[in-house]
Amino acid sequence: MHTVPGELVAALDIGGTKIAAALVDGGGRLLVRAQQPTPAREDAATVMGTVVAVLDELAASAHWPRVRAVGIGSAGPVDALAGTVSPVNVPGWRGFPLVAEVSGRVAGLPVVLVGDGVAMTAAEHWQGAARGRANALCMVVSTGVGGGLVLDGRLHTGPTGNAGHIGHISVDLDGDPCPCGARGCVERIASGPNIARRALEAGWRPGPDGDTSAAAVAGAAGAGDPAALASFARAAQALAAGIAATATLVEIEVAVVGGGVAGAGEILFAPLRERLRDYAALSFASGVEVLPARLGSDAGLVGAAAAAAEELGLWGRP
Amino acid sequence: MHTVPGELVAALDIGGTKIAAALVDGGGRLLVRAQQPTPAREDAATVMGTVVAVLDELAASAHWPRVRAVGIGSAGPVDALAGTVSPVNVPGWRGFPLVAEVSGRVAGLPVVLVGDGVAMTAAEHWQGAARGRANALCMVVSTGVGGGLVLDGRLHTGPTGNAGHIGHISVDLDGDPCPCGARGCVERIASGPNIARRALEAGWRPGPDGDTSAAAVAGAAGAGDPAALASFARAAQALAAGIAATATLVEIEVAVVGGGVAGAGEILFAPLRERLRDYAALSFASGVEVLPARLGSDAGLVGAAAAAAEELGLWGRP
Repeated sequence: MHTVPGELVAALDIGGTKIAAALVDGGGRLLVRAQQPTPAREDAATVMGTVVAVLDELAASAHWPRVRAVGIGSAGPVDALAGTVSPVNVPGWRGFPLVAEVSGRVAGLPVVLVGDGVAMTAAEHWQGAARGRANALCMVVSTGVGGGLVLDGRLHTGPTGNAGHIGHISVDLDGDPCPCGARGCVERIASGPNIARRALEAGWRPGPDGDTSAAAVAGAAGAGDPAALASFARAAQALAAGIAATATLVEIEVAVVGGGVAGAGEILFAPLRERLRDYAALSFASGVEVLPARLGSDAGLVGAAAAAAEELGLWGRP
Repeated sequence: MHTVPGELVAALDIGGTKIAAALVDGGGRLLVRAQQPTPAREDAATVMGTVVAVLDELAASAHWPRVRAVGIGSAGPVDALAGTVSPVNVPGWRGFPLVAEVSGRVAGLPVVLVGDGVAMTAAEHWQGAARGRANALCMVVSTGVGGGLVLDGRLHTGPTGNAGHIGHISVDLDGDPCPCGARGCVERIASGPNIARRALEAGWRPGPDGDTSAAAVAGAAGAGDPAALASFARAAQALAAGIAATATLVEIEVAVVGGGVAGAGEILFAPLRERLRDYAALSFASGVEVLPARLGSDAGLVGAAAAAAEELGLWGRP
């Protein structure tokens, strides 16, 4: 059994696919883990039952008495003021009082809620590519596009825990309608499904395995397929405009990009850096660096713990 | 002679048209003022000579011994870290060491430099339409489009003093080239000269006085001219996309809009509020209010003083 001393945070990572939990120590290590598939099509109580199940697994650990707080990172939108979540892909939860429900299970422990983009940012700032940076944008480019901000050395959550939602700023005000209700959002152009859609529309055809994921498009782009290359170039342009807008609005020194689409490597990063030179034109914005994220699939748990520790002043943070 | 007690800040407002200065007290009153036209086409030393002249006028006042700091708001770009300014419309000043030059004239007083958009924001937050708001965007829509941010109850200047540059975020990534080097910037669509240009291109003709200002376009729009109305509608759309991007990225509760173009009143504000509903679609962003600025042409001076007071902790600020 682990005997690492010190305070722990119980972290919850709520997504449309899985609900994960872990006990996290002050070094960012995951001491105990639990995970179940999200019953995303079920009613509110059933989804909450899964949260209770993973929490119960943690509470059965001998480490549990050292837990000082619960940190929750959830798919958005969230409302940290109200303590509620309304994950787009979990229709049974609309304004669901997750903080109150979790608080009722962890008597006396403070519970901190942030959006999943903010959680990923807390993780990259604590242990990843944004470490030591006073002003940073961290983003996940995957099925959707999310993000979070570090400003003046601290996580900037915004009052409701949603700040850094770069996927839903419009960079093409006359562009295609986005499911969010706006037009020309970064996500509408740069998410994995939109990269694949655009490549297919331009004539790219998948291989014999029928894989039409953004990863398959990246493979084709690497082999020189013009439709695949053009689709990644367009995604890079939208991401560049969004990163440049952020640098121009709040001043950031680095943009950290993770998520499945970032797995395309230089297929994405090379045109992204090139277009960023076009859009981040003002002197104070032009130096912004682009770096790949360092933390993998545990970023949500590590970040949920870090966000709670930062808000509550645990572990000497921030 | 005034006998208001307490500490004063000497404020400088550096623009392409005029260089203004004032002694400002803790109630935001301007006790002594000085102003000269900017010799914008002259060499660096001549422009600095005008700054020295207005400072000398202030220093001759009986109030001068109560001055505790100098606050400078300057047309940008500025670099608060280096203490330099490079106002676009003053070509003789490129990387000009304004903070060092002013410091040399005000022995021992701290000198704080911010961009003019940040200064205007400090003024509206202290005494104007953003008063009491913890998270706000303030903007000036005029010959250019500038702005600044209040986040978590404090002025967010960014490391170099340029944060809030909403005029140069791209909301139309394939749009017209902007003099800044990017494309489709908010300023390229919504500034006064661009409103006038677009109205003329669409067939609007000025009256017998030949006035082709945005104010004249606003007058024609008020009388129902379709080209004038369409041009304001397009400007409103770009401003709405920019405000929505800001609300989505950092969470703001209010956007304060001032400057000459805001003088068009509901000709601008009605379509702006309508389009904002389209672009600020996510729940946490959709409540953002739009308000006209309250402070007039003294905002630059009041705000330069407020920014210095906030950074230095004078007047019990923030």
